[in-house]
Amino acid sequence: MQLLKEKILSEGQALSKDILKVDSFLNHQMDPVLMKEIGKEFVKRFAHKEITKVLTIESSGIGPGLMAALELDVPLIFARKRKSLTLTEGLVTASVHSFTKKETNTISVSDKYIKARDKVLIIDDFLAVGQAARGLADICKQVGAEVVGIGIVIEKAFQSGGKDLRDQGFQVESLARIKELNVGQITFIEEREGAIVHV
Amino acid sequence: MQLLKEKILSEGQALSKDILKVDSFLNHQMDPVLMKEIGKEFVKRFAHKEITKVLTIESSGIGPGLMAALELDVPLIFARKRKSLTLTEGLVTASVHSFTKKETNTISVSDKYIKARDKVLIIDDFLAVGQAARGLADICKQVGAEVVGIGIVIEKAFQSGGKDLRDQGFQVESLARIKELNVGQITFIEEREGAIVHV
Repeated sequence: MQLLKEKILSEGQALSKDILKVDSFLNHQMDPVLMKEIGKEFVKRFAHKEITKVLTIESSGIGPGLMAALELDVPLIFARKRKSLTLTEGLVTASVHSFTKKETNTISVSDKYIKARDKVLIIDDFLAVGQAARGLADICKQVGAEVVGIGIVIEKAFQSGGKDLRDQGFQVESLARIKELNVGQITFIEEREGAIVHV
Repeated sequence: MQLLKEKILSEGQALSKDILKVDSFLNHQMDPVLMKEIGKEFVKRFAHKEITKVLTIESSGIGPGLMAALELDVPLIFARKRKSLTLTEGLVTASVHSFTKKETNTISVSDKYIKARDKVLIIDDFLAVGQAARGLADICKQVGAEVVGIGIVIEKAFQSGGKDLRDQGFQVESLARIKELNVGQITFIEEREGAIVHV
C-alpha cells in the first residue's frame, strides 16, 4: 500500500535491526484518514471472502480493525490483554508471548461474540514472529470459527511469522512488508500493488 | 443521543448499582456504525470550538476517539496505561486511580504529540468519578495545551466526576447520562436532545 509505505518512510524510525517506531501515526498518535484507507485496503484484499466478524487485540489493533469493520459493516471484537471487571464468564483464552517486550500475556475473548458459525478476519498492527495472530487464530479454532484471513498493517518480513502463517494455509495480507531494518534505514520488499489480490 | 440510549437499554446490563456492562458494542465487541455516529455527535456538540487534537486513553476510548478525530480531520492520541518499548523519551505522565478496578495506573503521552499550541478534545468511554478525564486534562495542563472540552460516551451521573469537571469550568458533553443503575434496570437523566449544544 503506497500511502502507508510513504508514511513509514517519512515518519517511521528504525531504532535497531528489530524495532520500528511508528508512534506518530499508528501506535500512539493515530492518523484517522490513513486508518480509514487501511481499513478499505484490507476489505479490498479480502473482497472474495465472506466475513462476519473482525477480530483484533488491544490497543494498536483497534484503529485499523475498527475501520475494516466499518467498511465491512460487521462488528469488531478486540481481545483483552488484561482482565476486565465486566468480562469474567465464558472466556476463551490463548497465551501470547511478546519477544520484543519479553512478556507473556493471556489474551481473552468472550464466547458470546465469536461463534462456530463466524467467519473471522484477524487484523493486527504488526506481524513479527506471529504470536499475536496465532493466539487470535487459536481462539477462533477453540470456538470452531473459521479464520478467513489475517490482515497486517506492517509485517517484519525478516522474521518468521508471515512465512509460518502462510505455510499453515492462512491468507496473510500485509500492507507494508519490511525486508530489512537498520538504524535510520527502512527497506521494503518490492511488490506490485494489488498483485496478491484475488478477485 | 437517542441511538446510543436505545443500544444501552437493549444490550447493556446493569450488574450492580455501580457497574454497567456494555461489552456487546463498546468495551469488547464494538459496533463500528454506532462508533461513527458517536464520533459525529461529539463533533456536533463541540462545533463552535477549534480543535487540533483528540486525546483519549487505551483501550475502549480509541474507537469513539478515532471516529471523532476522523470527522474533525485531526490526529488522535491515545494515552498509554502501560510502558511501551518505543515510547520512552519525553513522556508526560499522570496518575489515574480506578475505583472499580481498584488499581492505579500511570498514564503517559509523548510531548511530541501534544504541544502548548494544541486545542485538545478529550474523549473517553465512561465517566464515573472522573479520574481518567482529570488525568488527561492534567497532561494537557503540563504541556500548556488548552482543553476545549471533554466528550464522554456514557456518564454515570450518580457519581461525582461530571459535576466536578463542570464545576472546574470544563464543557463536558456526555452522550448518555445515567441517573441510576439497579440490577436489571437502567435509568437515564432525561434531556432534550441537543439542548446543550451551543452553536
